[in-house]
Amino acid sequence: MSAIPLVPSSQDIQAFHELFEKVSLIGRTPSGGMHRLAASHEDGLARDLVVDWLRSRGFSIGVDPVGNIFAYAGGHGAQTPCVMSGSHLDSQPSGGRFDGAYGVVAACVAADIIRRSNRMEKTRDLCVAIWTNEEGARFTPSMMGSGVYTKQLDLDLALSSTDASGVTLKQALQDIGYHGLAEGPAHPLSYVELHIEQGPELEAQGVPVGVVEGHWGTLKYVLTFKGRAAHTGPTPMSQRQDALLGAGHFIVGLRDMSDRTGGQLLTSVGRLQVSPNSSNVIAETVQVFAEMRCTDNALLQQSALALEHMAMQSAQQAFVTCEARRVTERPAGTFDATIAEHVDRVCQALGLPSKRLFTVAGHDAIHLGKRCPSGMIFVPSAQGVSHHEAEYTSPKDLETGLKVLTAALSSLLFER
Amino acid sequence: MSAIPLVPSSQDIQAFHELFEKVSLIGRTPSGGMHRLAASHEDGLARDLVVDWLRSRGFSIGVDPVGNIFAYAGGHGAQTPCVMSGSHLDSQPSGGRFDGAYGVVAACVAADIIRRSNRMEKTRDLCVAIWTNEEGARFTPSMMGSGVYTKQLDLDLALSSTDASGVTLKQALQDIGYHGLAEGPAHPLSYVELHIEQGPELEAQGVPVGVVEGHWGTLKYVLTFKGRAAHTGPTPMSQRQDALLGAGHFIVGLRDMSDRTGGQLLTSVGRLQVSPNSSNVIAETVQVFAEMRCTDNALLQQSALALEHMAMQSAQQAFVTCEARRVTERPAGTFDATIAEHVDRVCQALGLPSKRLFTVAGHDAIHLGKRCPSGMIFVPSAQGVSHHEAEYTSPKDLETGLKVLTAALSSLLFER
Repeated sequence: MSAIPLVPSSQDIQAFHELFEKVSLIGRTPSGGMHRLAASHEDGLARDLVVDWLRSRGFSIGVDPVGNIFAYAGGHGAQTPCVMSGSHLDSQPSGGRFDGAYGVVAACVAADIIRRSNRMEKTRDLCVAIWTNEEGARFTPSMMGSGVYTKQLDLDLALSSTDASGVTLKQALQDIGYHGLAEGPAHPLSYVELHIEQGPELEAQGVPVGVVEGHWGTLKYVLTFKGRAAHTGPTPMSQRQDALLGAGHFIVGLRDMSDRTGGQLLTSVGRLQVSPNSSNVIAETVQVFAEMRCTDNALLQQSALALEHMAMQSAQQAFVTCEARRVTERPAGTFDATIAEHVDRVCQALGLPSKRLFTVAGHDAIHLGKRCPSGMIFVPSAQGVSHHEAEYTSPKDLETGLKVLTAALSSLLFER
Repeated sequence: MSAIPLVPSSQDIQAFHELFEKVSLIGRTPSGGMHRLAASHEDGLARDLVVDWLRSRGFSIGVDPVGNIFAYAGGHGAQTPCVMSGSHLDSQPSGGRFDGAYGVVAACVAADIIRRSNRMEKTRDLCVAIWTNEEGARFTPSMMGSGVYTKQLDLDLALSSTDASGVTLKQALQDIGYHGLAEGPAHPLSYVELHIEQGPELEAQGVPVGVVEGHWGTLKYVLTFKGRAAHTGPTPMSQRQDALLGAGHFIVGLRDMSDRTGGQLLTSVGRLQVSPNSSNVIAETVQVFAEMRCTDNALLQQSALALEHMAMQSAQQAFVTCEARRVTERPAGTFDATIAEHVDRVCQALGLPSKRLFTVAGHDAIHLGKRCPSGMIFVPSAQGVSHHEAEYTSPKDLETGLKVLTAALSSLLFER
C-alpha cells in the first residue's frame, strides 16, 4: 500500500449516522424492524432521500430501466471507467434496518469523503449503486437489479415479474418514478459491497471485519401443485385432488433431504401462495417457493434432481400434478482474490483484525463478479440474526465498516 | 294436507329466473363462477338489489347489527310470530352462483307469491332471511349471521372478526351500509331453507328433491404454529424454528387420520396464513384452518383429541409451538322430524319423487334448529360439484325446488 488511505473524520461519521437514521425511519415497524418492499411507496421515499443527499453534494444521477440508481462522485457519467460500491434499500416484509441500507449509506458517505479529497481524476469515476429488488420478497427472482445490469437476467423478464397482487415491477417502478432510461457504468473497474454478516461467525470470534472470500451455491424453485377446488364437506375423500396436501408432503420431504446430509445441504420453504385459500374449499393451486444452498456443487446438483423427483412423488400422493421451475441457479464460487487481498491489506494498515469467510446468503456482489473484479466486506450481526426485526449491529461496528470501505475504495481508485 | 298448496305460475317462474340472473351478475367471474365475499362491495350490491326487489313489493325490511336482513311479507315486523325461509348471498372466493343465492331468490319469490294470495293474516307473518357470512371464507367462523341470531355466537365476537387484511366485520358491514339496529323475528314458528345439494346423490339416483333429515358433525380448528423468522441462508438448520415445517407435518398427519378410518372421517386443510411469507425468510407464524366431519359423534370426539395431540407432535418436529383453537363444534344431529314429514307430504301432493338424505356441509338451517323447528330442501348439483366455478343446477331443477318451497311455506303458514 503506497499511501495512507483516506479515513472518515468524526464529522463524516456523524453524517453517516444521521443519514442512516433518516433512512431507517422510512418503513420502520413498531418493533424497530423494517418493512420496505422493492419499488413500494416506502422504497420510493428512501430512494428520494438518498438521491437528494447525493445530488445536493454534486453527484450526477442516472436511473436505468430496472430502477437501479447510479450516482457518480466525479460527475463523469456512465462512459468513464469507475470503481463501484453499493447495496440495496429494499427489505423483507418484517426485516431489519441494516440489511442493504447500511451498505448504501456507507457507500454514499465514503464516496462523498473521496469526492471532497480533491483527488478525483477525469479518467476514473467512483459510482454508488443502489440495486433494485435484492431481497426477492415482493418480486421474483432476488438480486434482480444487479442481475439485469450484469446481463444474468433479461430486462423484460424482470419488468414483467408480478407481486402477489398482480402488479408488475415495471408498473411499480413507474409509480415511484424510478423506471429510468439511463444505462449503468459501461466500464466498471471493480465493485466492493459492505454488508452485515447475517450469520454468527464474526461476533462469536470477536473479529470486527469479515473479508468475504466466496459464496455458497444456491438453487431456487417455484413449484406449482395443481388439484381441483371442491367443498371440504360433501366431496368424498377418494375424489379429492388436494394441492395443499401435495405441498405438505413436499415441505416435509425437503426437510428430510437436508437432514439426510446432516445439515450440510440447507433447505427451506418460506413462502406459499394458496388458491382459493378458503377453509372449506380444497386448495386448487399451491405455489411453493423452495430453496437449497450448499458449498458442494456436486451435492447441490444431485439434490436438485432428488428435489424434482420428490416433488412429483408428493404430488402423486395427493392425486395432483406438479410443475417445478428452477428460478435461480448459482453454483458456489469465489470472489475476486485481488479485491479480497486488497481489503486484507487495508485492514492491516488500519490496525483492524479481520478474517476470511464465505457468505451463505446471496448478494448483488455475486452478480457483479460476472462483469468486474468484485468483493465484499462484512461487519458482525448480533447473534447472527437477520431477516428479522431484531437484526442488530452496534454503532461501533458500523463505523468500523465505513472506515474499511472508505479506505478500500480510495486505494482502489487512486493506486495503480 | 287439507288444501291444495300454492304453486308458482309461469310468470312467477319467469320472475324467479330474472331475479336470479341479476343476482348472478354481481361478482360473476370470467369463467361463470362467483366471487362475492361476505360484506364486500359485491355483497353490498347484491343485498341492495334483493332489498329493492322486496321493498318495491311491499315487504318491510329490518337489518340487525350483524348484517342479517329480515324481510316481512305481511309487513308486521319482528314481534309477530312468523314462518321463515332464506339462505345467504356471500360466496367462496371462486365459488358457484347457486350456493346460497338460489335459496335467497327462491324464498323471495315464494314469499311474494304467498303475499299476493291475499291469505296473509295479522297474527302470522312470513319472513325472508338473508344471513351474513355463511361461507366463512372472509370472516371466521362460518354461518355467522345465523349463529348470532340463534345465540350460538356472541355478537361482539362476530363483529370483531377480521379478514386477512385486518378489516373487521363491523367495519365491512358499515362500509356497505348493513350494520343495522333492528332485531330479528322474536317468535319464529319454523324455518325452511332451499339449497343445492353440493353432493352427488340426487343426480346419481335421478331424484329431483332431497328432504334433508340431518347433518354430519363438524369440528373446525384454527391452529397457530409459532417459530422464529430468520434468513433461509446463513441460519444453520439446527437453529431453525420453522412454523411452515410444523404446518407441513400437520397437513400430512391430518390426511393420515382420515385414511386410517377408510375415509369415514373427512379431514381437510383449505387455508393457511403464512407470515412473513417471503421465500428467503423462515416462516415465523402459520395459521392452519383445519376441518373434520363425521356422522359418528364418538369418532369425531376421539379424532379431535387425536388431532390436538398430532398438532403438538408436528410442532415439536419443527422446534416450534402450536396453539389449537376449536372455532366450530357441531355434533351430528337431525333436523325437525315434523318439518321433514311436511316437505315429504308436499312432494307427494305435487307428484314429485323425493328422497331423504343428510347434509355433510354446514348450513344456517342447522343453527336455526336451536330456535325453532327447522328443515332443508335440496335440489341436485351436477356431478356433486360445489365451491367451484363449475357448480351447476339445471333451470328445471331450480324451478322444481321453488315449487316445493312455495308449497311448503304456504302450507306451514296457513294450515293449523
